Amino acid sequence: MGSYPYWEDVEEGTEVPSLVKHPTTRQLVRYAGVSGDFYEIHYDKDFAQSTGLPGVILHGALKSAFLAQLLTDWIGPQGTLRKLGCQYRGMDQPGAPLTCKGVVTKKYVANGEHLVDCEVWVEDEKGQKFTPGWATVVLPTRAG
Amino acid sequence: MGSYPYWEDVEEGTEVPSLVKHPTTRQLVRYAGVSGDFYEIHYDKDFAQSTGLPGVILHGALKSAFLAQLLTDWIGPQGTLRKLGCQYRGMDQPGAPLTCKGVVTKKYVANGEHLVDCEVWVEDEKGQKFTPGWATVVLPTRAG
Repeated sequence: MGSYPYWEDVEEGTEVPSLVKHPTTRQLVRYAGVSGDFYEIHYDKDFAQSTGLPGVILHGALKSAFLAQLLTDWIGPQGTLRKLGCQYRGMDQPGAPLTCKGVVTKKYVANGEHLVDCEVWVEDEKGQKFTPGWATVVLPTRAG
Repeated sequence: MGSYPYWEDVEEGTEVPSLVKHPTTRQLVRYAGVSGDFYEIHYDKDFAQSTGLPGVILHGALKSAFLAQLLTDWIGPQGTLRKLGCQYRGMDQPGAPLTCKGVVTKKYVANGEHLVDCEVWVEDEKGQKFTPGWATVVLPTRAG
């Protein structure tokens, strides 16, 4: 990395560099541990199928965390992720890659802060966008 | 509880009170987290079956921990679990109860300590003893 955007570098339509994630059953087990969400649909295939799911599915909050990583990887240590929200509109299973994407929708100054709003989303291999979100980041300015 | 054995209370052949455990897929996921053993055979059914297993199986060290609980529940806070070993001779799956049992094989004094050796094991519903073990505990004496 090493090259992070200044507020002057972005404008409406600027794309956030994509982040590809490869969620595995192991990641779901680790995420259960760190999040404290031990609902069996995230690791017990038989249980998941007994509830009508095709198999184990990702924690929604894990997909939200992927979006957070998309943004913090982009803005770097000088930026601040101020707000992040998303909706869980569909289920994703481990074993297939997910691509996190984003685009700048607005840039503005408020209360002395240089702000950027983005649309973000997680996309599966079929291009389905099950996790649309929105974020606000604070970027540094070249003026310092 | 509240009633724990003194060294004078036990003799060769004394049975350790049984401990019944009900391992679940959730317990295996929790155990993966605390032990750091994230091998997929303990939570990913498809992976487990791809290695020839009938499904996910218990961590051997979890069964060893069940035996430790058997003993520490028995001896109470005034006793000390000095040694515990076991062999993993078979696989156990979550969803069926396991019973931990033990019997005193020897009592003796060494270096001023009042010691008790035990055979311990984990038994499944069919009476199969896949996890035989041996332990040494230190018990308090009525003499104080």
